[in-house]
Amino acid sequence: MSKPDLASLQHFLATEFPQTPCLIEAVTEGVVRVRHPVGPESLRPGGTVSGPVLMAAADVALYVAILAEIGLEPLAVTTQLSINFLRKPAAGKDILAECHLLKTGRTLVVGEVSLFSAGDAAPVAHVVGTYAVPIKT
Amino acid sequence: MSKPDLASLQHFLATEFPQTPCLIEAVTEGVVRVRHPVGPESLRPGGTVSGPVLMAAADVALYVAILAEIGLEPLAVTTQLSINFLRKPAAGKDILAECHLLKTGRTLVVGEVSLFSAGDAAPVAHVVGTYAVPIKT
Amino acid sequence: MSKPDLASLQHFLATEFPQTPCLIEAVTEGVVRVRHPVGPESLRPGGTVSGPVLMAAADVALYVAILAEIGLEPLAVTTQLSINFLRKPAAGKDILAECHLLKTGRTLVVGEVSLFSAGDAAPVAHVVGTYAVPIKT
Amino acid sequence: MSKPDLASLQHFLATEFPQTPCLIEAVTEGVVRVRHPVGPESLRPGGTVSGPVLMAAADVALYVAILAEIGLEPLAVTTQLSINFLRKPAAGKDILAECHLLKTGRTLVVGEVSLFSAGDAAPVAHVVGTYAVPIKT
Repeated sequence: MSKPDLASLQHFLATEFPQTPCLIEAVTEGVVRVRHPVGPESLRPGGTVSGPVLMAAADVALYVAILAEIGLEPLAVTTQLSINFLRKPAAGKDILAECHLLKTGRTLVVGEVSLFSAGDAAPVAHVVGTYAVPIKT
Repeated sequence: MSKPDLASLQHFLATEFPQTPCLIEAVTEGVVRVRHPVGPESLRPGGTVSGPVLMAAADVALYVAILAEIGLEPLAVTTQLSINFLRKPAAGKDILAECHLLKTGRTLVVGEVSLFSAGDAAPVAHVVGTYAVPIKT
Repeated sequence: MSKPDLASLQHFLATEFPQTPCLIEAVTEGVVRVRHPVGPESLRPGGTVSGPVLMAAADVALYVAILAEIGLEPLAVTTQLSINFLRKPAAGKDILAECHLLKTGRTLVVGEVSLFSAGDAAPVAHVVGTYAVPIKT
Repeated sequence: MSKPDLASLQHFLATEFPQTPCLIEAVTEGVVRVRHPVGPESLRPGGTVSGPVLMAAADVALYVAILAEIGLEPLAVTTQLSINFLRKPAAGKDILAECHLLKTGRTLVVGEVSLFSAGDAAPVAHVVGTYAVPIKT
């Protein structure tokens, strides 16, 4: 498959993965940026953005980065993901996830994601995840 | 703080963490079991339960296991979490998360969670996570 | 390939992986136990067993558990490994690594390892690792 | 403690951690580079550098990066480490580990390490690790 552009990826995400609140903001050379809106439903005790919201943002950013690289393959699935929570995100700010791929193999793709509270420079979390992609016969 | 019982934990989760759909099913010697209901909003492309739903179930199970051990401390926060996705969960089954703690330290608690599609014996995912707990002065 | 027995695995490890100081102690139903001798060269500042020695013990235990399951495939390679250090190991005790597999797939195998200072009940570390195995055509 | 320079760090590593074969090559603004020599004892089946050698290189790079930041604190210990193996390292090349810190907290420090076969541009492995540092009273 050829590499899809931003509009194709946004359309794909909206039709194939309507459950996600994430929006693709940018697909540039080597980096994908995704925004996860944050509302009261995204919080946890202590008034901060919940871990699973951060993990969801990272997972979608990885998925989009992989599709941007290998083409619109909906059956790419996460096999492993590791997250380090670095700083407390602010309750009132969206989460931005920036992903670049570390390795695109024949069956496994590994990517790294930095997560930010929109407008803040220091990352709130850092993720490394692996996706398995179906083997093309 | 003393160790809370199941009813106290259920009440705590409902009042302090209303955003979570998770229900605490059991708090027995060494093991906590949490159920994450699964509906259409929990799915991803391929008709399976999304990774973030599994991560959320594991994170809540860890949180509850820690509270069950150290007392109702709402400010315990995840510092690190690693998930391996083992088998494809069925779309129509709730997710059960069973957690036991590996180590309860003064500032860090590490726990392990096995995730299942309700009714199935083989785990769909496996998590190890670390929480930081505020130091008691 | 058929499942090898303890003697075959010990011979394989000695001939194919002479660099490792690890010894296979047991290969029983579902669990492999490996011993990593500990001497002064295994220590780090603070007089405890170094992290890399624990990681090496876990990695060999995983490798042996996989070979015990799928047969003597020397080209199985680690793709991902996560370790949590739980308790300080004693300087004078060997490290025991006990591994059981979480999932044996067609291309990826995931296993879990608990690491102990020989003679102590509480694990000093916990590992989850993934190996890729060559696809049989 | 003040931030030590390269010579102080090299001296510290040689005296406090004589077990490690690693050499500190550079300590520049934000990045530490460490070299792990590779010989026959570093290999594994398949003629490639063993996973534990890569993990050791990363662990020492993290340790040095942390000491460079917080001062010569020998009791900093690894609490968690995750490694993704990306490409097969060449048997005859030393391993270079480049570390930068993601977050320096009061009790936990998180860093990221890229590992290379000396002379090659694409990383052979990627690590994220956490160290606990004793609380200064």
